Amino acid sequence: MLTANDPSRKSWIEVPTGSDFPIQNLPFGVFLANDDHVSIGSRIGNTAIDLAALHQLGYFEGIILPEDVFLQDTLNDFITLGKPTIRQVRNRLAEIFDVNNDQLQSNADQREVVLFPVEELQMLMPVFIQDYTDFYSSREHATNVGIMFRGKENALMPNWLHLPVGYHGRSSSIIVSGENIHRPMGQMLPPGAEAPVFGPSKAMDFELEMGFITTDGKPLGDRISTGEAEDYLFGMVIFNDWSARDLQRWEYVPLGPFLGKNFGSSISPWVVTFDALEPYRTARPKQEEPKPLPYLECAPNTSYDIQLEVYLQPEGGEENLISESNHKYLYWTMVQQLAHHTVNGCNINAGDLMASGTISGPEPKNYGSMLELSWKGDKPLKLSDGSERKYLLDGDTVIMKAFCDNGTQRIGFGEVRSKILPAKA
Amino acid sequence: MLTANDPSRKSWIEVPTGSDFPIQNLPFGVFLANDDHVSIGSRIGNTAIDLAALHQLGYFEGIILPEDVFLQDTLNDFITLGKPTIRQVRNRLAEIFDVNNDQLQSNADQREVVLFPVEELQMLMPVFIQDYTDFYSSREHATNVGIMFRGKENALMPNWLHLPVGYHGRSSSIIVSGENIHRPMGQMLPPGAEAPVFGPSKAMDFELEMGFITTDGKPLGDRISTGEAEDYLFGMVIFNDWSARDLQRWEYVPLGPFLGKNFGSSISPWVVTFDALEPYRTARPKQEEPKPLPYLECAPNTSYDIQLEVYLQPEGGEENLISESNHKYLYWTMVQQLAHHTVNGCNINAGDLMASGTISGPEPKNYGSMLELSWKGDKPLKLSDGSERKYLLDGDTVIMKAFCDNGTQRIGFGEVRSKILPAKA
Repeated sequence: MLTANDPSRKSWIEVPTGSDFPIQNLPFGVFLANDDHVSIGSRIGNTAIDLAALHQLGYFEGIILPEDVFLQDTLNDFITLGKPTIRQVRNRLAEIFDVNNDQLQSNADQREVVLFPVEELQMLMPVFIQDYTDFYSSREHATNVGIMFRGKENALMPNWLHLPVGYHGRSSSIIVSGENIHRPMGQMLPPGAEAPVFGPSKAMDFELEMGFITTDGKPLGDRISTGEAEDYLFGMVIFNDWSARDLQRWEYVPLGPFLGKNFGSSISPWVVTFDALEPYRTARPKQEEPKPLPYLECAPNTSYDIQLEVYLQPEGGEENLISESNHKYLYWTMVQQLAHHTVNGCNINAGDLMASGTISGPEPKNYGSMLELSWKGDKPLKLSDGSERKYLLDGDTVIMKAFCDNGTQRIGFGEVRSKILPAKA
Repeated sequence: MLTANDPSRKSWIEVPTGSDFPIQNLPFGVFLANDDHVSIGSRIGNTAIDLAALHQLGYFEGIILPEDVFLQDTLNDFITLGKPTIRQVRNRLAEIFDVNNDQLQSNADQREVVLFPVEELQMLMPVFIQDYTDFYSSREHATNVGIMFRGKENALMPNWLHLPVGYHGRSSSIIVSGENIHRPMGQMLPPGAEAPVFGPSKAMDFELEMGFITTDGKPLGDRISTGEAEDYLFGMVIFNDWSARDLQRWEYVPLGPFLGKNFGSSISPWVVTFDALEPYRTARPKQEEPKPLPYLECAPNTSYDIQLEVYLQPEGGEENLISESNHKYLYWTMVQQLAHHTVNGCNINAGDLMASGTISGPEPKNYGSMLELSWKGDKPLKLSDGSERKYLLDGDTVIMKAFCDNGTQRIGFGEVRSKILPAKA
């Protein structure tokens, strides 16, 4: 029998060449259909699959699932069932949509209630996020920011190579791809000024990140080891951690970023499971100088080869590719992040989001923020329409894409897309 | 007609002398009764009031309330109804339990399903908190910490007098009074060491804080002005922001506290409404040098005179009063905190918790943390059993109390109590 990840498996649903969503992906998301019903879904090619309808038709027989688990407006109840159950559902989907299975394929009435063209759907936030944590795990990004703000000698803080630095972010303002964001107002200290001023941010930036979503963890007081961490990793999304650099610079000492970040962050709507990403594991960066403490030691193959792209589209203009990076550049792995996060007994819940921090790579074209791409404004980016950017302008749309491609098979995340609207007076 | 706050109003429920819960208080909380039913309740003296039972008996007739609004395990649905409705319910409770109203008073069958001795109940977390923010609004605390870590010259950061510094904290690990907390394990850099070590925190501390709970706010992108802020303030609780100083010191640069805080925070179970606190408004501190930016200007009477006490009880020993402070010492008011938090368009939800930061006052006896009371260990505290404390030991119970007393009337919060359990190996 073929596994869900077998690259030779084909679906009876059409998959356009280069699609992020072959039958080997089978991500999970939440959609609002034309007829106003909300359901949990999966996707093959450009076709969405209504899991609530499939469940009602009995296609998940033999898997222990609450009756209404897919009739929800978030994935949380489903995720709470744990990874073995989620895996059973994904494996079953692979069977149902296998080209050699004609049960649903040959039943037009059933197909009509199960399948929807994705262009007829509105994708909603996939999860309710109680707690969102942002890490800072790209050595290149931390070094670049350090050089800009503190000089080359003190670029990396003394703790950075010893632990995955992270901080808590705002959950309420996380939005889904397609929703736009207003330029934030706030307090900033203009260069050379003695007193701060209030106004719209003049240094609006994106941060190219990815985030992972957890299952339920252990009770408060217990920790999740690096060896156990993968049991608690459900799936991943693309994450744009919008940043107002001028607000951030003035406010962040000594307790960290606050209003420079919490006006909004954008995620992609389809959660790609770690099971689907299994073929794209790759070696993690060496951590020899210094070696991490034993509680942070982890298996070598715990990074993922996920290609990342950022496009900037001026109002009415075309998409400009401005950054190409890769998730594998991250120094600290997700396994290490989760083990560190819980080593003090901090509890996690199903639907928690933990983001990577800006993912920059070794070359300038790999930088994951305007701050780095324009080197704090010293080297403005040139766009195809002849305009220049130090930071983002009103009307700019930022599109981030993520995909794995090992030559045999492509698995992708789709995109996260959001436009900057003018500040509200 | 008497208002709910009228100090001359008496209840037919007995209120012991010095009680925090006269009929003028009428806080809201969630309890688990002996018979295993969970309900939203209020409290007079040592008697809890089952609001779900009252609602079922028709006592809230004329107030628009969903049928199951009190049959919940959190206050969130109730808070979502907004302050005018919450006020109607509190006013109605004042009438029902007024000594001159014998409707319920004279009905033994009804009293039996409505009233419970508080000692028979277990108090639960009053709200589901999606987002928790911690401010840093005591000038004395920020100055003390600044002197200890950076010297007298650089004690306050340049931004501190211009904005209420704040950061996001962890919601999942907030627990209710009575639950105990394990000493966290973590990474720390011992004095003089070149590399960090892993082990149980050796600098376990409390932070004396209070927190306010919000109603639903405005949509993402809109802001709440200082003039509007009070419409969104539901009530307050006592907040113990447990801190592991050694973990915090090593990890917090540059993105703020993380594992030094997120292993747990404790709150008191009864939410005292701002309506009940109305008689205890007091003048806020002068903010002249510098004057805050216009968006932070607020009315003069936006501080509250709430007396605070911290007791340390060693295992098997007696309670030692180790700190006496007051909420009115805070430099930044809650109105300013909320206006600042939302000025960039950040949205808030019903049940969000925003804490004050450690509330220290001008005198050493007003200091709100062991870090300050023992001046980072240089001046250990002497307890009544002859033992000394630089930081907290396993088995120590920390009890925080808060109450308003203007000579005419006392309104209190009860307490938040939690014991330090040994680290889990």
